Amino acid sequence: MNYNDLYSHVVRRSKASAIRELLKIIAQPDIISFAGGLPDPALFPVEEVARLMSQTVLEHPQASLQYGTTEGQDALKTELVKLLKETENITVKKEQLLVVSASQQALDMSARIFVNPGDAVVTAAPTYLGALQAFQVAGADIIGAESDGEGILPADLEKKLATLKAQGRPCKFVYLVPDFQNPTGTTIPEKRRLEILEIVKKYNTFILEDSPYRQVRFEGAAPATFFALDKGQGNVITLFTFSKIFVPGFRLGYIAGPEDVIRKFVILKQAMDLCTSPTLQLITAQYLRTGRLQAHIGHLIEVYRKKRDLMLKTLAEVMPEGITWTHPEGGLFLWLTLPKHLNANELLRKAIENKVAFVAGVDFYPQANVHNDMRLNFSYSSHEQIVEGLKRLAQTIKENL
Amino acid sequence: MNYNDLYSHVVRRSKASAIRELLKIIAQPDIISFAGGLPDPALFPVEEVARLMSQTVLEHPQASLQYGTTEGQDALKTELVKLLKETENITVKKEQLLVVSASQQALDMSARIFVNPGDAVVTAAPTYLGALQAFQVAGADIIGAESDGEGILPADLEKKLATLKAQGRPCKFVYLVPDFQNPTGTTIPEKRRLEILEIVKKYNTFILEDSPYRQVRFEGAAPATFFALDKGQGNVITLFTFSKIFVPGFRLGYIAGPEDVIRKFVILKQAMDLCTSPTLQLITAQYLRTGRLQAHIGHLIEVYRKKRDLMLKTLAEVMPEGITWTHPEGGLFLWLTLPKHLNANELLRKAIENKVAFVAGVDFYPQANVHNDMRLNFSYSSHEQIVEGLKRLAQTIKENL
Repeated sequence: MNYNDLYSHVVRRSKASAIRELLKIIAQPDIISFAGGLPDPALFPVEEVARLMSQTVLEHPQASLQYGTTEGQDALKTELVKLLKETENITVKKEQLLVVSASQQALDMSARIFVNPGDAVVTAAPTYLGALQAFQVAGADIIGAESDGEGILPADLEKKLATLKAQGRPCKFVYLVPDFQNPTGTTIPEKRRLEILEIVKKYNTFILEDSPYRQVRFEGAAPATFFALDKGQGNVITLFTFSKIFVPGFRLGYIAGPEDVIRKFVILKQAMDLCTSPTLQLITAQYLRTGRLQAHIGHLIEVYRKKRDLMLKTLAEVMPEGITWTHPEGGLFLWLTLPKHLNANELLRKAIENKVAFVAGVDFYPQANVHNDMRLNFSYSSHEQIVEGLKRLAQTIKENL
Repeated sequence: MNYNDLYSHVVRRSKASAIRELLKIIAQPDIISFAGGLPDPALFPVEEVARLMSQTVLEHPQASLQYGTTEGQDALKTELVKLLKETENITVKKEQLLVVSASQQALDMSARIFVNPGDAVVTAAPTYLGALQAFQVAGADIIGAESDGEGILPADLEKKLATLKAQGRPCKFVYLVPDFQNPTGTTIPEKRRLEILEIVKKYNTFILEDSPYRQVRFEGAAPATFFALDKGQGNVITLFTFSKIFVPGFRLGYIAGPEDVIRKFVILKQAMDLCTSPTLQLITAQYLRTGRLQAHIGHLIEVYRKKRDLMLKTLAEVMPEGITWTHPEGGLFLWLTLPKHLNANELLRKAIENKVAFVAGVDFYPQANVHNDMRLNFSYSSHEQIVEGLKRLAQTIKENL
């Protein structure tokens, strides 16, 4: 049986993730990998999760094990409304929230709900690879706007939107990771956020705000979210997830947006998977009710800050002249830029021979036109691995300068 | 902010599920509902699940709480390979399996992987509503073939495929629920399965076999699955789920198919949600290793058989002349046909006034052209509710004959 004549355009637009394929290659134990984006598993609250799981199922067997509503478990949404109010000064009704199977599902849904094949969306260049994948599957024409150390450049964003307008094409949304962006680690300051919001309104589109790392801030004051800055005018849809602050294995996130838009997400989700596991939703609600999430985040901030500090210190010690890197105020990643004549993908092959790995930056660019960056993850490796891995990386770079 | 100009065609093709919307209306406690398709929550192995959950997380904290591979947890796939061999005499490699967030996700993925807007698929008429929704979202032209008490009619299936061929249009797949079909409760006999398989091969398409109820058989010998009958020739992709035999709240299912097709599913799933919860996958693997699944299924068969028997007996006692119904050999549903002049949706409004509910059959027909059927669920209600609810239903019918 030959399936080739039966596949849809979606299959032709789907590409295997460069990172997820790379992770399989570098799974050998003697390679030090800065390539993934995994949380440190030593930080999972294992005993507490184990206890909450059995407690939740025993106390609420029917609600936790039966099918749930597509909208999400009311008990969890009650906690999410409180959490957003307390931590972000965001006021939403439950009808403005949809529980999803983590941010990647929210990205896929956003693409399906807004993008017809050929439609334009604008992102920072570089940006999160998983978002690019989801938008590509929908057939989006992804237009990357330039960014600097403070995120997407408002002037270039406006230029891209004006060009689209002149072509009579709507920009379906502007996708941004405003806090400790994956891959660069940069954060958009509040002043720039307000500028961006004005531009977006002017061009009748909205910001798809992806916020997986926001709570993991090591230093400085947090700018308000785009969602809060929008003051309920409906120009922002924000994606939150528990993957980086609680348990990635639960695959649990939520979308906040205007009620009528959330309703469209709900109807699509009915056809996609009926609902996200009510078991995991109720366990997470129970965890939020313990009030221990903020203390847990405080603990993981301490651990990740030390790792970031060690990575920054070691980079300064071992890297040759001409190499630069970002100073992320939080999150899981930093971004290292090589001299223009070096190609990070070619370097990666040599680095793997030297038993160290990273992700080449090119796949994070919508137009795949920049070849001398790399993303380094500092959350997963141990202190010893960070020092030894960066020495190996510096050695590899020196051998190829 | 007005989003109407930004929505995609997907939004225009998405319809809220008639059933899920109905379930909200009839959630009042004094209404006896045969409308849903819920398992009896008294059958959930609550204590065992609670114990296995904490045990799994404590014994495998990293694997169960960290991100997982898109393909699915190896530990679960090892058990699934054994389960298929032991219960279905199906031999597959792990690479032929993908773990998904239950069957509805598999249906959505199947539609995305094979259907471009306007492409034809063939189903039995009537068929599972959630499949129709997923196929509609993809823009499928859904062609319903006639069925009788033994499922889809081979002659009408061939007629539909021949018409498509004459039009130069491929049939992307033939979707079937061969065992105790939702909504009718009918099962396709093995002889008819072989006929259907030959027809499907002749027209260069494949069978999308949806098998959520198969293990819940009350009587008679099970015909082989289409997957087994195909003998590895690749003309069948089969969807399995744990929702009806273990815990629906886990949202856990799996797809079996040719290795190269499963690879396409994996790549799409990367962009859709990265992976299905490894936590729930490993708990389910642990449960399968206990070897108690078959005994548990045996127990729920006893409970559901008694409920079906009671429903059949009560129907015979209370229903007026001219009403007929199916005799399902398993599963969760039976199908009741009214005289042609009665409209089940109009009757439903009156039934709700009489405090009993069902699902009108029309939404299960791809062409929505038959109005005098209804689906009755017998798994969820208590014995008392079955008797009292059917009396109310018979009364409502008599009042409107």
